Formats: sequence, structure tokens, C-alpha cells
Amino acid sequence: MAAEIVNPRSDSASGTDEPFDPAFALHRGGKMAIQATVPVRDKDDLSLAYTPGVAKVCSAIAERPELVHDYTWKSQVVAVVTDGTAVLGLGDIGPEASLPVMEGKAILFKQFGGVDAVPLALATTDTDEIIETVVRLAPSFGGVNLEDISAPRCFEIERRLQERLDIPVFHDDQHGTAVVTLAALRNAAKLTGRPLGELRAVISGAGAAGIAIAKFLLAAGVGDVAVADRKGIVSTDRDDLTDVKRELAKITNRAGLSGSLESALSGADVFIGVSGGTVPEPAVASMAPGAFVFAMANPTPEVHPDIAHRYASVVATGRSDYPNQINNVLAFPGIFAGALQVRASRITEGMKIAAANALADVVGDALAADYVIPSPFDERVAPAVTAAVAAAARAEGVARR
Amino acid sequence: MAAEIVNPRSDSASGTDEPFDPAFALHRGGKMAIQATVPVRDKDDLSLAYTPGVAKVCSAIAERPELVHDYTWKSQVVAVVTDGTAVLGLGDIGPEASLPVMEGKAILFKQFGGVDAVPLALATTDTDEIIETVVRLAPSFGGVNLEDISAPRCFEIERRLQERLDIPVFHDDQHGTAVVTLAALRNAAKLTGRPLGELRAVISGAGAAGIAIAKFLLAAGVGDVAVADRKGIVSTDRDDLTDVKRELAKITNRAGLSGSLESALSGADVFIGVSGGTVPEPAVASMAPGAFVFAMANPTPEVHPDIAHRYASVVATGRSDYPNQINNVLAFPGIFAGALQVRASRITEGMKIAAANALADVVGDALAADYVIPSPFDERVAPAVTAAVAAAARAEGVARR
Repeated sequence: MAAEIVNPRSDSASGTDEPFDPAFALHRGGKMAIQATVPVRDKDDLSLAYTPGVAKVCSAIAERPELVHDYTWKSQVVAVVTDGTAVLGLGDIGPEASLPVMEGKAILFKQFGGVDAVPLALATTDTDEIIETVVRLAPSFGGVNLEDISAPRCFEIERRLQERLDIPVFHDDQHGTAVVTLAALRNAAKLTGRPLGELRAVISGAGAAGIAIAKFLLAAGVGDVAVADRKGIVSTDRDDLTDVKRELAKITNRAGLSGSLESALSGADVFIGVSGGTVPEPAVASMAPGAFVFAMANPTPEVHPDIAHRYASVVATGRSDYPNQINNVLAFPGIFAGALQVRASRITEGMKIAAANALADVVGDALAADYVIPSPFDERVAPAVTAAVAAAARAEGVARR
Repeated sequence: MAAEIVNPRSDSASGTDEPFDPAFALHRGGKMAIQATVPVRDKDDLSLAYTPGVAKVCSAIAERPELVHDYTWKSQVVAVVTDGTAVLGLGDIGPEASLPVMEGKAILFKQFGGVDAVPLALATTDTDEIIETVVRLAPSFGGVNLEDISAPRCFEIERRLQERLDIPVFHDDQHGTAVVTLAALRNAAKLTGRPLGELRAVISGAGAAGIAIAKFLLAAGVGDVAVADRKGIVSTDRDDLTDVKRELAKITNRAGLSGSLESALSGADVFIGVSGGTVPEPAVASMAPGAFVFAMANPTPEVHPDIAHRYASVVATGRSDYPNQINNVLAFPGIFAGALQVRASRITEGMKIAAANALADVVGDALAADYVIPSPFDERVAPAVTAAVAAAARAEGVARR
């Protein structure tokens, strides 16, 4: 996406001037602040919140490290960590330029989940350096939300951090998207009376989101999933696959498809687009009757909703101006809020499944073709996801309270 | 200092219980939170603060990196970085146990300077690792406040970070203390009509604070400064000095003193205690007539104020329950606020001198033996320090706006 600076006058860095655009005006000075939650009005306040009173709290934590969860903000604050390499559709724009997105993420955490979050855009893209940095930061945080880190590094970074840390590490571009997609798919299947196990899905895009969705749908019992990258269906007969895609080929595509995305769509029950690009109308037309089309690229869906509706029984997009918006904000605030509430050491598959189910259930009896997923502003969402994730963490033995 | 947990019942980690102590009660859940400063009430808000609106702001910063200061919170947020090795008088208690102090520092930044601050307690004490970690974090912050990192590592960490980063890096235990001490000393000298150049000062304590105070007083024109560690006066004839103290010996102690702290105090004009320990009354009595005694150890001053008053014309401590409290909160909020206001690339000696002078000047015509330094709650302090530091940064050519 090209920069769309409206009136980028050369003196706007001086702070005396501003491009004439509501997004720039809103962003001036940033979107967040720190707030003290205890008073510091006089010396009595100071002697409790700071020296000398704070010393006994420090000593207590030194003696019993688990008390850090009780007497600091650790268990309510998440690090939103990026290296700025895969920001929105903009790609590798670097850490500073990614900060507005990370701040946005942070305020969504607060607004929707009541979770404090701190944007940390790192000046390194080296896998080992990112991992070491986050490990060193971990004492100060109750969880780590990895964000907009490009594939395939994002997979290794998440896996190795999960191995080394005892707090949740969650790459939202993967799992947040997967949770919301599963919730929508579950409701679409319910609406049309089809068991997940009988569905064959085709995913366009083999990046972080596509791979995570594929694995998650299979874990949830979807019958078959094939993933296409730019060269076609990821299959074991290809010799141009990265390690990550080779592993993917082994667990997906039970039908043994090969060739183009378009050919794979013939007779498919579900299309999931996380790629950008465009799917030709004849390919959509070739899908099974009553198919589901989730064309989530933003701002331009892989299949325009008007076209999708000619053939599909349920249509979802990533856009807020159409029904059934697949939006990560439906998942990550509640997932972290639930995990932090019970001081979970990690976010398990079961917790993510529970989140998807809770999210799907919010729709309830109002389920309809244009309402398979709640609105991001539905106030029932975050509490439902939070409670389900906390309960699942307890059930799975990863809760610490 | 021993831990003073009142009623540390074993189930308090469950969150259902709390030691019966006001400091613990106040600390429950931590002392700070994140606050969104823009609305996220509906999809229109979301489309400006997050996608798609945020993309054009990101693109603008990618094209013109200096815009990060205008359109994110970078230029108003400081990282409060520690490794937990020199926390209050508690010593090396580790990162988690240091967090209550770092949160306290963060809320003081906010309360007194309007500066946002994020506590980052690192899980490493390795000099190189701390430096690399902070360098990688730098894109997200407008400044770095190093805190409670033990000497001598703190000196190298600060120096090397200052060399590598284009944002202020300031070890408050050194320079904050030095700024407030100089302000008090300047007013004490003014009150008693003595030029700084005629004063001979003796500092008890050759850690971060003692060394920084010594250098800063000399830079401000104090006539002579000698520093004592546990083995006596730091002098060039000693063969047991660390590198840092050997350098200190070269620039301090022009009188060529050697031997004990007590002997050095004979005829001295100023005592500055940043060591803990106790100075015997006869040594205090041996100081020059009308001496200044700044006994800043907390909670037990090196010289009890009642004793100091028998011999000294001006007495200051680190305690809030005696007059003339030397408290870092008088300096660091305004110093960072001023530096951030003009986007200073560093904090120079001139900016620190300006801060000390502004702080001293707040006292004005009310100057008296029991009022050489303002109260931490004097609302004139932070604006005065902020303005002076910003002006000095411009004068010294380190301001970027």
C-alpha cells in the first residue's frame, strides 16, 4: 500500500502543523498514556507507594517470588512485541513505523479486555535476538503478544519463547485469526446443518494466518483443509517448499490435491482468504452448493461479497462495512484476559478452542447467514471469551490460581 | 534491610488474602495502568485508531522517520530499566522483586512530570546483554531511565548506551541525586555567603551516587571534593582501587588527603553521606565552623539531624520527616519532561546544571537554614526544572525541536 499522506508539509515534524486528515489528527501525540492507580498526593502517600513502604513489598517478593503477581501490575500487563517486518499489508516498514499499529493494539487490549498492554517495537529482526530480548523482558509482563512478525521467523520465535517462558506467548496474527475463523465456521456449519467433519476447506495464503488457521481447523475436526500459496496447493509432491510448508503438507490436504487454488476450489465447501489477491468468479462458482466464503483480505477481499453471495450460503470478510466481520479484536482481548485472570503459564489448544466456542455461542439463537459472528462492539464477547479461556486453563492444568 | 512482611500467610498468593499492612494493601494489583487517550467506541473510531486509518500514519513514518515523535507516544514515554541488583538498600533482589520500586518510579514520573514511564526489570545482569536489550527497545521510547543497577556496571552501561542511542539515557541514582544535592549545596552556600569555589566537601560512599555527586560538584565549581569508601579516602596512593575509583582519585581530592573518612572531615566545609553507616559525633564536631551536613542515607542518616545541628549551619537528609529532604523526585521528572519536550538527543552536563539551578531558585527569597531545597510536593518545581532543561538543551544544541 502506498503512503497516503495528505498534505505532508515539511514542517509538520516541528509539531506546529498537521496533515489535514482525521487519522493524522487522531494520532498526534499517540493514543495512550500511563495512569497511576494509587494516589501520590502527599508525603504519606509517597511513603507507602515509594520509599520506605515499598521496600517491604520488594522484600516479600524476593522471599516469595509468586507474590509479584499480587503486588505489581505484572499479571495484568502484556507486552505487544513486533519487529515491524509484516505490518498490516505494508510489509517490512521497521519498528518506528509499526508503532501506531502496536499502540492501536494496546488500546484495543484495554478497551475490549481490560488488559494493560505496552507496545515494544524492536530494533532487530534476528530470530535469536528477538527471543533473547523477550526472555529478558519477561519478568515485567504477564504475557507476550507477538505481532506483525513475518513468516517463517514468527513460528520459530513463538515456539522457542513458549519453551523458555512460563507466561503465555501468543502470536495473534496466527491464533487470533484462527480462533475467530473457527467461531464463524462453526456457526456457519450449525446454520446449514453440516458437521465440521464433512467440510473440505481451501485456504488462500500460506503465511502466519493461513498456516495457523489450517492447523486449528484440523484440530477442531474440520474434515480436510488444503492451503495454497502463490505457486498453488501446498502438497507433498512439491519440491519448492520451506520447512514450515513441508510440515504443513504432511498434515493438510488429505484429498491429495495439487495444482492451482482455483482447481482446488472445485467442489470445496469452504474458502478462506488470508492472502490478498483475487479469486476469479468461475472458481467461486465451482464450489459445492451452499459453500462458505470467508474472504478476509483488507481492504480488498479476495472475493467481493456481492460476487460471493451469488454462490455461497454464508459470506464473511475482514471489513467492518459488511456483515460477518472476522476481526481479531473478537478474540485476543478475552484470550489474554482469561489467561491472566488465572495466571496461566501458556495458552493451550484447548483454551483457543474454548475461546472460539464461546465466541460462536454469543450469537446464540440470532444465528443467521449475515450473523455468524458477533460484532466487535458486542459487549458480551470479551466476558464470554475471558470466562471460557479461564475455565479451560483450569481444566487443562495450566492455571496457577 | 530485612524483609518486614506483616502476616505473610501462605495463602496470600491465591489473591484471597492480604498481609495486614497498608503498604501491601496499597500495592495489591500494582500501582499503574494503561489508558487509551483516543476513543474506541464504534467502528468509525476503530477505523481511525486502528485499521484501515492507522496504515497511512505508519506509511508516513516509514517515509519520514522523525514523524514517529509526532504520531506515537514515543516522545512522551520513558523506559525505567533495571536489573534488580541495587534496589533501595535491599541490594541484589532480582528483577521481579524490584518491580514495585520501578512502578513507583513510573507513577512519580507521571505525577510530577507528566511523563509516561514503563517499568522494565530485566532477567539479566550481564552488561553487554543489558546494553543490547535497551538498544533493541529504543525505537519505542523517548528516553531511558536506568535505575538501581549496581556499580561499577552502571557506569559502563550508561556510557555505552549514550554512545549508541540518540535518545537520553540517564542513570537517576547517579545524576538525579547529584542534581538535587548541588541545588541544596548552592542554596546553603548562598545562605551563608560562601562561594562554591571555597568549599571543601567530603562524600561518604563511592558507589553510583557518591561518584556522580563528586564529579558533578567539581563540574559546578566546588573547590575540592574527597570521596571515601569503606577503606577510607579514595586517593591516588591506594593500590586497591577499581578502575572507576582510580579515575575518581585523579580528579578528586586535590588536598591529597588519605586515611579515614573521619580524619578527612577535620576542617571540611561539607559532608555528604550516601553510604549508610554512621559518622561519629567528634568527626562532625571537627568540621569547619558553619559546615553543611547532608546525611542522605535512608532510613538512618549517617549523622542524626539532632547531632548535626549542634555543629552545622545547614542540615539536610533523605527523609521526609525532617526539613531539607534531598529527594530525587525533585529532579528526574522535570529533567526528562524538559528533555522530551524538545526531543533532546541526550542529557548534557549543562542541562543537569540548569536543572540544579532552577531547583535551587524555586526556594527564592524564602531561603533559610531549614529551607535550602523545595518540598517534593511544591508544584513550582517540575515546571521550573522542565523549562530550564528544555532551554539548556536548545542552548547546547541537543534539542531537535
